[in-house]
Amino acid sequence: MRVLILGGDGYLGWPTAMNLSASGHDVATVDCYLRRNICREENISPLIDVPDLNKRVKLWEDISDRKIPVYIGDLRKWDFISQVFRDFSPDAVVHYAEQPSAPYSMLNRRAAILTLQNNLDVTANVVFAVREFAPDAHIIKLGTMGEYGTPDIDIEEGWIEIKHKGRKDKFLYPRQAGSLYHTTKIMDTDLLWFYVRMWGIRVTDLMQGPVYGLLTDENENDERLYPFFNYDELFGTVINRFIVQAVAGYPLTVYGKGGQTRGYLDIRDTLQCVRLSIENPADKGELRIFNQFVETFSVNQLAENIRRVGKSLGLDVDIKSVENPRKEAEEHYYNPAHSGLTSLGLKPHFLTDDVLGKMIETVIKYRDSIDTDTIFKGVKW
Amino acid sequence: MRVLILGGDGYLGWPTAMNLSASGHDVATVDCYLRRNICREENISPLIDVPDLNKRVKLWEDISDRKIPVYIGDLRKWDFISQVFRDFSPDAVVHYAEQPSAPYSMLNRRAAILTLQNNLDVTANVVFAVREFAPDAHIIKLGTMGEYGTPDIDIEEGWIEIKHKGRKDKFLYPRQAGSLYHTTKIMDTDLLWFYVRMWGIRVTDLMQGPVYGLLTDENENDERLYPFFNYDELFGTVINRFIVQAVAGYPLTVYGKGGQTRGYLDIRDTLQCVRLSIENPADKGELRIFNQFVETFSVNQLAENIRRVGKSLGLDVDIKSVENPRKEAEEHYYNPAHSGLTSLGLKPHFLTDDVLGKMIETVIKYRDSIDTDTIFKGVKW
Repeated sequence: MRVLILGGDGYLGWPTAMNLSASGHDVATVDCYLRRNICREENISPLIDVPDLNKRVKLWEDISDRKIPVYIGDLRKWDFISQVFRDFSPDAVVHYAEQPSAPYSMLNRRAAILTLQNNLDVTANVVFAVREFAPDAHIIKLGTMGEYGTPDIDIEEGWIEIKHKGRKDKFLYPRQAGSLYHTTKIMDTDLLWFYVRMWGIRVTDLMQGPVYGLLTDENENDERLYPFFNYDELFGTVINRFIVQAVAGYPLTVYGKGGQTRGYLDIRDTLQCVRLSIENPADKGELRIFNQFVETFSVNQLAENIRRVGKSLGLDVDIKSVENPRKEAEEHYYNPAHSGLTSLGLKPHFLTDDVLGKMIETVIKYRDSIDTDTIFKGVKW
Repeated sequence: MRVLILGGDGYLGWPTAMNLSASGHDVATVDCYLRRNICREENISPLIDVPDLNKRVKLWEDISDRKIPVYIGDLRKWDFISQVFRDFSPDAVVHYAEQPSAPYSMLNRRAAILTLQNNLDVTANVVFAVREFAPDAHIIKLGTMGEYGTPDIDIEEGWIEIKHKGRKDKFLYPRQAGSLYHTTKIMDTDLLWFYVRMWGIRVTDLMQGPVYGLLTDENENDERLYPFFNYDELFGTVINRFIVQAVAGYPLTVYGKGGQTRGYLDIRDTLQCVRLSIENPADKGELRIFNQFVETFSVNQLAENIRRVGKSLGLDVDIKSVENPRKEAEEHYYNPAHSGLTSLGLKPHFLTDDVLGKMIETVIKYRDSIDTDTIFKGVKW
């Protein structure tokens, strides 16, 4: 299939591009280096310098003999996105092209407005480009488990039947997020669901939990193909950050009581989930929603596991509770469903001590590049 | 109280400004004439030419001896909105500053993107301006009953308790709207609810049904103070349109089966509801939601009532079912709650034959200005 990856330079975009290319799909990538630019502005660097997208597709071609066209430009501009769609004619569009950081979206007004405008404008343009240039194309949208928040009832897979005063109807599961970034993802869902109903477009919404990991089948022999791996407060996800903190001898920063529970997955499982969604498309007029994670942990559990595995590798890992800069429940009920992707064939990787150990060993090689100043800034909610 | 009215030039904005000014509040208005500009672009005129905002406040000052400062500019621009807030220091902000037409939002991509960007950017800027310059100010946001759509269960007033698998929690009532415009209002709600929880701002969301009418206590002796009254397909609300069609001898355009049922209110009741909300503010950290309408009608009922009253005034009123250009349920369950504003003291006006007759008689005076070409264009959903 012809798969267009929006945000193909990102932490998940580039590994997805290689994985789909290796699976025999014709892949093209689009990016405007928004994340790289924000990192530069905020004085943040990824753990490992990664070549830009044009250089990476060249490296990939040398290894795989497969080409991945690159379009560099801003998907908020109609002239650009319409040219990309006309040129590539995708069968599937993987939409990662959003500002993905919750803390960045809470940093200040400018960052909030950038997040709101970028995420909504790109999603709207994707809908209009699909309608005009690729009406049968399947949009695979990265949502987030964070859209649901932490309700006091079981979290279902996107939808819920509500019985009320003797009648019933089916609705999108209620959404109530913990950051402006997550709120823009709720708005994306509102927008996609509206046009699914009106225009019969086909959409899969992948409600993803925090992802961890570096290595995939496609990159493990060449660090130049590693993903854009952040460990700072703004763009690092919690497991990746804790691993780097453990290696750097920086106490693991547990916010408040540490009972915050979320569903996590290995980056290799993100690749599987996206590929399974592409190869088993949603119907026309369907908004198909999957909860994309493999297992749940509290922050305390993650910290303890990383301390234990770190110690076994000779690291002296401290855990430090810091005053929570966020407004969030530090202890809460959390029971989310996640059977849809398993039934499509997902073979999950779990966060075993071996997996943690391998991540720690990989990060140790880059110990000298860790900038501990960026680990915790305490962006206030 | 010092009340800032955003969108003070509009159908509801200007009558609200006069009403609050007459009630003793210190009122200021803001507008960028977006609606006037769109009407000009789309070759649409209101039934009655209305002077611009600066001329209207002068007329109002002559009558009432009360000043209403005017700020002309685009609330999407931070420089402008921050200057307005610093200058006026509002206690309450009435937020009408949105592109309010469902059909316009479905007209084409440019109109859709304008609606999405304008409505979200202004709402976000209002939140940031309140936080920075008027942290105690109460935001009175015009929402719409259309956010709820037409679910098969009773519509509650903003919130619903969901019992699910032996547990329960309270959520925003599920929202699923019938146009992009209405979907942007759902997004506004998402945004306001997020910042209410995070920053403790105070917000009242008025989920308003379609408004009808021209005359208010403040304007009935001077047509130059009438609201910007559209009867075209893009900006006219259904009762106003049907009245003008009845006067023009243009068959009333019922879409499909005509069973579409909504909650309606007289423009004088909008003024009461907004004033009651201002004078009984929401608490800090509260998103208070009222369903703002007085009685429900199906389109068929409205058409029949207008035909009957029209005939009694000597008009020959036809009703014509046209193929529905929209995607919507033409027959559906509809049972929305609306007790909140009544308990604050709303004294409703009902759509009696007298009220319809008076509207018809007013419109008859302007019969010669009706441009029947703009009544139905059939913007497709």
